[in-house]
Amino acid sequence: MARPELGVCYYPEHWEQSRWEEDARQMVGAGLTWVRIGEFTWGLTELGRNRFDWAWLDSALDVLGDAGLKVMFSTPTAVPPNWLVREFPEILPVDRAGRTRTSGSRRHYCLSSEKYVEEAKRITKEYVGRYGKHRAVQAWQIDNEIGDHDTAISYSAAALSGFRRWLQGRYTDIDTLNRSWNTKFWGGRFGDFDEIQLPVGSVTAPSPALELEFMRYSSGRVARFIGMQSGIIRKHSPGRPVIHNFMAGSYDFDHRRAAAHLDIAGFDSYPLGNLIEGHLSIDEKASWLRIGAPDYQGFHCDMYRELGQCGMWVVEQQPGPVNWASYNPAPVDGAVRLWTWMAYAHGADTVLYFRWRQVPFGQEQFHSALCHYDGTPDRARHEIAKVATERVRIPPTSRSRAKIALVVDYESRWAQRIHPHGLEYSGEFIAADWYRCCRELGNDVDIVGPETELLCYRLVLVPDMVISRDGFVSRLLDSQAQVVLGARCGSFDSLMQSPPGGAPGAFRRLIDVTVRRVESLPPWHREAVEFGDREYSVTGWREHVESDEPVMARFSGGFRDGAPAVLANVRTTYLAITPRGECLRRVLVDAMTRAGLPVTPAPEGIRVTFRRNIGFAFNFSGSPGMVPERPSQRFLIGARRVEPAGLSIWIEEDP
Amino acid sequence: MARPELGVCYYPEHWEQSRWEEDARQMVGAGLTWVRIGEFTWGLTELGRNRFDWAWLDSALDVLGDAGLKVMFSTPTAVPPNWLVREFPEILPVDRAGRTRTSGSRRHYCLSSEKYVEEAKRITKEYVGRYGKHRAVQAWQIDNEIGDHDTAISYSAAALSGFRRWLQGRYTDIDTLNRSWNTKFWGGRFGDFDEIQLPVGSVTAPSPALELEFMRYSSGRVARFIGMQSGIIRKHSPGRPVIHNFMAGSYDFDHRRAAAHLDIAGFDSYPLGNLIEGHLSIDEKASWLRIGAPDYQGFHCDMYRELGQCGMWVVEQQPGPVNWASYNPAPVDGAVRLWTWMAYAHGADTVLYFRWRQVPFGQEQFHSALCHYDGTPDRARHEIAKVATERVRIPPTSRSRAKIALVVDYESRWAQRIHPHGLEYSGEFIAADWYRCCRELGNDVDIVGPETELLCYRLVLVPDMVISRDGFVSRLLDSQAQVVLGARCGSFDSLMQSPPGGAPGAFRRLIDVTVRRVESLPPWHREAVEFGDREYSVTGWREHVESDEPVMARFSGGFRDGAPAVLANVRTTYLAITPRGECLRRVLVDAMTRAGLPVTPAPEGIRVTFRRNIGFAFNFSGSPGMVPERPSQRFLIGARRVEPAGLSIWIEEDP
Amino acid sequence: MARPELGVCYYPEHWEQSRWEEDARQMVGAGLTWVRIGEFTWGLTELGRNRFDWAWLDSALDVLGDAGLKVMFSTPTAVPPNWLVREFPEILPVDRAGRTRTSGSRRHYCLSSEKYVEEAKRITKEYVGRYGKHRAVQAWQIDNEIGDHDTAISYSAAALSGFRRWLQGRYTDIDTLNRSWNTKFWGGRFGDFDEIQLPVGSVTAPSPALELEFMRYSSGRVARFIGMQSGIIRKHSPGRPVIHNFMAGSYDFDHRRAAAHLDIAGFDSYPLGNLIEGHLSIDEKASWLRIGAPDYQGFHCDMYRELGQCGMWVVEQQPGPVNWASYNPAPVDGAVRLWTWMAYAHGADTVLYFRWRQVPFGQEQFHSALCHYDGTPDRARHEIAKVATERVRIPPTSRSRAKIALVVDYESRWAQRIHPHGLEYSGEFIAADWYRCCRELGNDVDIVGPETELLCYRLVLVPDMVISRDGFVSRLLDSQAQVVLGARCGSFDSLMQSPPGGAPGAFRRLIDVTVRRVESLPPWHREAVEFGDREYSVTGWREHVESDEPVMARFSGGFRDGAPAVLANVRTTYLAITPRGECLRRVLVDAMTRAGLPVTPAPEGIRVTFRRNIGFAFNFSGSPGMVPERPSQRFLIGARRVEPAGLSIWIEEDP
Repeated sequence: MARPELGVCYYPEHWEQSRWEEDARQMVGAGLTWVRIGEFTWGLTELGRNRFDWAWLDSALDVLGDAGLKVMFSTPTAVPPNWLVREFPEILPVDRAGRTRTSGSRRHYCLSSEKYVEEAKRITKEYVGRYGKHRAVQAWQIDNEIGDHDTAISYSAAALSGFRRWLQGRYTDIDTLNRSWNTKFWGGRFGDFDEIQLPVGSVTAPSPALELEFMRYSSGRVARFIGMQSGIIRKHSPGRPVIHNFMAGSYDFDHRRAAAHLDIAGFDSYPLGNLIEGHLSIDEKASWLRIGAPDYQGFHCDMYRELGQCGMWVVEQQPGPVNWASYNPAPVDGAVRLWTWMAYAHGADTVLYFRWRQVPFGQEQFHSALCHYDGTPDRARHEIAKVATERVRIPPTSRSRAKIALVVDYESRWAQRIHPHGLEYSGEFIAADWYRCCRELGNDVDIVGPETELLCYRLVLVPDMVISRDGFVSRLLDSQAQVVLGARCGSFDSLMQSPPGGAPGAFRRLIDVTVRRVESLPPWHREAVEFGDREYSVTGWREHVESDEPVMARFSGGFRDGAPAVLANVRTTYLAITPRGECLRRVLVDAMTRAGLPVTPAPEGIRVTFRRNIGFAFNFSGSPGMVPERPSQRFLIGARRVEPAGLSIWIEEDP
Repeated sequence: MARPELGVCYYPEHWEQSRWEEDARQMVGAGLTWVRIGEFTWGLTELGRNRFDWAWLDSALDVLGDAGLKVMFSTPTAVPPNWLVREFPEILPVDRAGRTRTSGSRRHYCLSSEKYVEEAKRITKEYVGRYGKHRAVQAWQIDNEIGDHDTAISYSAAALSGFRRWLQGRYTDIDTLNRSWNTKFWGGRFGDFDEIQLPVGSVTAPSPALELEFMRYSSGRVARFIGMQSGIIRKHSPGRPVIHNFMAGSYDFDHRRAAAHLDIAGFDSYPLGNLIEGHLSIDEKASWLRIGAPDYQGFHCDMYRELGQCGMWVVEQQPGPVNWASYNPAPVDGAVRLWTWMAYAHGADTVLYFRWRQVPFGQEQFHSALCHYDGTPDRARHEIAKVATERVRIPPTSRSRAKIALVVDYESRWAQRIHPHGLEYSGEFIAADWYRCCRELGNDVDIVGPETELLCYRLVLVPDMVISRDGFVSRLLDSQAQVVLGARCGSFDSLMQSPPGGAPGAFRRLIDVTVRRVESLPPWHREAVEFGDREYSVTGWREHVESDEPVMARFSGGFRDGAPAVLANVRTTYLAITPRGECLRRVLVDAMTRAGLPVTPAPEGIRVTFRRNIGFAFNFSGSPGMVPERPSQRFLIGARRVEPAGLSIWIEEDP
Repeated sequence: MARPELGVCYYPEHWEQSRWEEDARQMVGAGLTWVRIGEFTWGLTELGRNRFDWAWLDSALDVLGDAGLKVMFSTPTAVPPNWLVREFPEILPVDRAGRTRTSGSRRHYCLSSEKYVEEAKRITKEYVGRYGKHRAVQAWQIDNEIGDHDTAISYSAAALSGFRRWLQGRYTDIDTLNRSWNTKFWGGRFGDFDEIQLPVGSVTAPSPALELEFMRYSSGRVARFIGMQSGIIRKHSPGRPVIHNFMAGSYDFDHRRAAAHLDIAGFDSYPLGNLIEGHLSIDEKASWLRIGAPDYQGFHCDMYRELGQCGMWVVEQQPGPVNWASYNPAPVDGAVRLWTWMAYAHGADTVLYFRWRQVPFGQEQFHSALCHYDGTPDRARHEIAKVATERVRIPPTSRSRAKIALVVDYESRWAQRIHPHGLEYSGEFIAADWYRCCRELGNDVDIVGPETELLCYRLVLVPDMVISRDGFVSRLLDSQAQVVLGARCGSFDSLMQSPPGGAPGAFRRLIDVTVRRVESLPPWHREAVEFGDREYSVTGWREHVESDEPVMARFSGGFRDGAPAVLANVRTTYLAITPRGECLRRVLVDAMTRAGLPVTPAPEGIRVTFRRNIGFAFNFSGSPGMVPERPSQRFLIGARRVEPAGLSIWIEEDP
């Protein structure tokens, strides 16, 4: 089958049954092969406890299957029905202010509620039992966008008792916990597990060890929930891959551990909505208002590609303006095609658009779709049709491993939130900067975790792993890769304590550096750094390090001039700063050069990537750009010159 | 009696009884004929349940009446006494965070509390029974500034059960409600009215149909409350007009429906306080810091003039600095006179100043008054004295209907809040811009509602009626008026669903336009629009419309150039943009020209308006300005040249 | 003993017992003579009710004492143990939103909880009983940083009933309270003390009298708590001074009344952390990022010097970057020495650094210390060592009274918060400006309270005493001092009511001015003021005053030009404005000149101060500066030329 496969999210419950056949026919006609249904249907199939109305859903499934579509069925646990909330109000989540979050929208459940987990199990069994072996059902999605609207974490009474029990299981006795957490600080010793509180509402910051453990606990509840559903599906619907659609840009729970229970890692891609709500400068946002940040799609595909056991999908792809951002611009013509091909280039097998038809009621009325309210095609249909015809020209290949790995560690992200130290410090944004810099310099990147095998990489980037992990450092040592360590790396052990010898903890096995002091700096103060023959201006972070390792760059702004800003031995570069822009580029060019990697900057706004010998170029700028000339390059789609929002695909015959 | 009549708000309870006669004497001497009393006296007359102390209030009323003043008596329901709160704490309102709002200030009641309504009824009967036929009592005010401090809406348990009962009365059975609201979205089907929650505290946005219905319910509680008091007054104090003082700039409940129970619509006018807290740019605020926005007084007079069954009053007019804004500047000398005459020019019969004497205790100590703390006259007294002598020169006239109607629809305002789509979208500010533009172009405006008869208008402006209303469109069709429809008009039906065929819904009967997509745009992005020979820059909103109607302006900024930005057929103009400044002026000049209306821009900062053949000009700028020359113009007050903060009044003898 | 004495805060509980001797030895070696311990140990000594483990603390004390260190022991009430919170959850404080603030960090107690006070009394007796006569214990600290993290005020049920009882004690009957507070405003009459609510959560502003009384009540709870502990210490540990470490910059309770129970007033000095979080402009913050505001240390020393019955200490001195500000820069080399000498110059006898060794766990891991994590010396040790050797060169002297007194009145600060009138009005910032201006003009300042004897001053500055106090004005009259009164002085009586005759109330005995109107002005509006031959631009505040007193400066910006902006009779200057910068300097130069005080501006960024005939100069600028030449000046440390972050100390032999 030609790739990418295309599909769409469909809500038969929103439309007259008489329309379904026509919709299915049009889907097939548009080149779509997959259709996702079911994720918010619990309250529509179980009208009261054990009072089921399956008829409409049976029919919908038959209609879609009869049309030749493959159905990804979603378990309906994302929205507990109103009658269930009324029966067991204790299933509702509780927010940081101690307020119960009510029903009336979606995701109103607390994963610490055993009652909810039991009910979710029951309804999952009902759904999978009924439809698991239906010929049209070719994949399962579990729940929907877990963690969205800040729902990965709940401060309910159930969470408090669950957390206490979890800690008891983990530490057995309270003295072990006291010792492990060093509760002697501020005299916070516990006499009993029942004295432990959730990390919320305390007078000032609670114990960082407790905060990090609570994140682990909460994250574990998500993984357990996914695992529970996955087990049911595997048992009752064998052979169908299990998928979840993660939220791009969410780090509230460990997607990697959750994905261990899945076959395919999916994510939801909203390049414009996420641009508006993201961290880029206003100038950057203005540049990319209608096409999205050039590295948005690539970053998330590279990230979730790594998580899937056997594949990665874009489960929801933005087809036009959305309804939920502060501002909701329309994509430029060509953007939907570009995003689709870019997803494929970065490893997606399948791209589903959200949604088939714009809905004239409910909270998402202004979310565009492939069809207008009246069912006539909206503009994205033309772009999708184009992809559908283009894809037959691309020979099937898989994506090769990149030579550069960039490490994203969920626990480190939690640790940064627990103690950011500086108001603007964000490992997420730092990692995004590093990724972007690599991509601008023409190199592909794999996004890996702290437990990923690293032998195949020439360069491993560790922008923000503030938690020191021995096993990870061992893997780094085992590899032959150059390593670049960002400031703050290894600041904490696994309980948010300073590792023996202080930062960078276990990373000291790579480069003999000791961090003596850290400074977080306001954006209105800048430090000067001399790097070879040039002086750069940096801000945000400065570390005072002691080291005999070779110094690549030194501070030169008037305070302790000559102190090292960047150090590098034969294997490892350590940054005592958080550089951006030109200074970051200098650091990474150096590292790539040491690693023997090419440095081939593409023209401004062009992104080039590869699936083995198939090359892809995407133009995010406002003017035409030229694809870099490559050996034996034969264009399959497009040409050397790429128009704005355009793309080219070529094959390198003799790779 | 010469107009405007003048009056003042007075709190005899704040002063020694021995002072009352002197105060009353001075009021009369200052040319005041009306005095308002009573609105916060419940706790001072009913000292405990059924334990009354009327003596002081009896005396006060006698003293004022004996001096020849007409008393507007206010029912005292705005402040339930502390003993009542203690007896029935359930009368307190509940805020969005679920917190009970405590007593200790004012307006601490929830209109869903049947207990409170019952108590309010009881005390209203006591007051009206006792004073309803007193010769001095010539008018009644109901409560005070209902909705102030965000009190029109309460999320109490009483509100929840009241809302459920109200819905049950409206929909009869839950299936009808499910069908009407399309609760199949996100599987939100209700099995019972008791599963419905208030639209607060849900995980993400609740059902927009539910939100809008809750606004209707809450607004209805206000109207019911006013109606209840009005009924008592009409029964026990016949012949006295019933008034309420609405809050200028508040749209939390439908003032129009509430005013149906009143005789006279009053509002409270604070030109400087509202300027500081309003939406204008810093530059505009700085220009008008001491005089207020030029269209503030006119807009609100025009709005409430339309609501009164038999008249409109300014119940509280700012006399000097207030105490409650973020900054509290003093008015420039002349401003109080200017506001008073402007109120009259725009239709006010009576202007009461707030308050007689600055109070040396309590929350309003720094609110200036007509007298200083010590009872000596403050500066506004001189300006009022001037008005009192000037008014005899002005022959009595009523205000004619304007040729332009601007439509304000409360329900549309609620719908905009429920789904603004873009962060800055505000129908209130858009309507204010359109009004201002008309006034700058020399035209008077009536502010009307969706049920107002429109036959007499030449131009009807519909800046932001996002709810599609068939009856209103029929009235537009019946009129001969030109119509200008702002972007978003007709986006929703009465349950916040897309109307059949999508936006602009019923307005399609006027102009054959179909909105295919909407975009909300950030202020840091601008679109170019070609309008005739000029290009304008706009932001905020862009609609993608399909239409065969004539196109007046097209997009020209690089994205789908040529797409229509403004369309107009022989009757109706439709805007696919939300223009401001020059671009808006272009649109409205065009519409006025088609409507055969004059376009006669006054000098910068001058506002001209008419009561039939009496012309008024007001100078809000910092330099003298010239009144436009008019046929048979004879000046009654002032002259052609108007000083800053000055005014002229003339008669056109041969109108 | 040479001064300043130096010391350090130490947490033996954080370290292996085997390390204590070495630590103590190093402390002594570093020239430290004082060590503070104990303040967060309750949960570590009382492991359950009456289950004590004293052994470790006994040992720690012995080790420190044996090394020759003097111990300041802290009572451990700042952190109730977890078991106590579990036993009596009602001891927890409640925040403005009505949420109970949980345990898990520190300071989780409500001083209105009689249960907590009782428990605090019990544990204080235990500690003082056990260690009160230990030879090493030479001073006591009570609790720690009372009020930090917004803990001086609690809105608990205990606070409500405590406040009611306190009011009953104060007013005896409710009618007296009603009369005193003028509860007739907004009909807020109380029938009973039990109808009174806390000033929180009301619909709009509560009674200002009630708010101010609640501040007095809350402040009184703190004083009572300190008095209770102080009494125990005096009984069981005679001869040891009692200290509290107040939070610099906190005005939530009356530090002066609390200090009446102390011997020595201490405060915690964090020049960089407080700079970042303070009110200075970004430009100023950027200039002083690594050295702190030039007047921070001086201001707080001058303030707390006045509070101590027999001395003032810096109990916690910042030694490097802290962990708790939005940004945490490192001090420039020399800054810790400079701060130490500046503390001494301004009257501190003893300076303790916070803390001995950086702790590798808990909430303060990134707070630097005198030792690194590993126990090796951090940089501040070198600067302290330098101070320790330098101090023997300075002959002992005490600080003389200054000729200028600046008045800080806690109750006035509360009144300003209750009614700021203008968004940015802050008496705290105004007083800081006035202080800075005096210091820049070369004059020392005493910071005094409304009850301080004033006979010795030549100039008394009253920047923001909004509460009118007869006794204070009498003391002003008795003194021969020139007086400068800031705008708003005397606006309120002691129950937040306008004083008879209005502002400036009792100050009218000094200068015959009547404030007729006040205006608060936004920062984007400026008024012009003609002062002699120069025009200044001011903003923030304008008063309209009536007076026959001589006018020094008049408004000249176009609104009521010629109205007085500054008035001055032979004794007293009154400001109808809140000047800053050049205009403020003009006012104060005038006042100093009248007072016969020298005006000797030091070079930019240099601060000069005196302890009798010992002069000190500190350089906060980025370039070297010259100490002003003085008669018979002999340098003891440094020289005329002072390097950035450097200092000079000299003696004037013939003073």
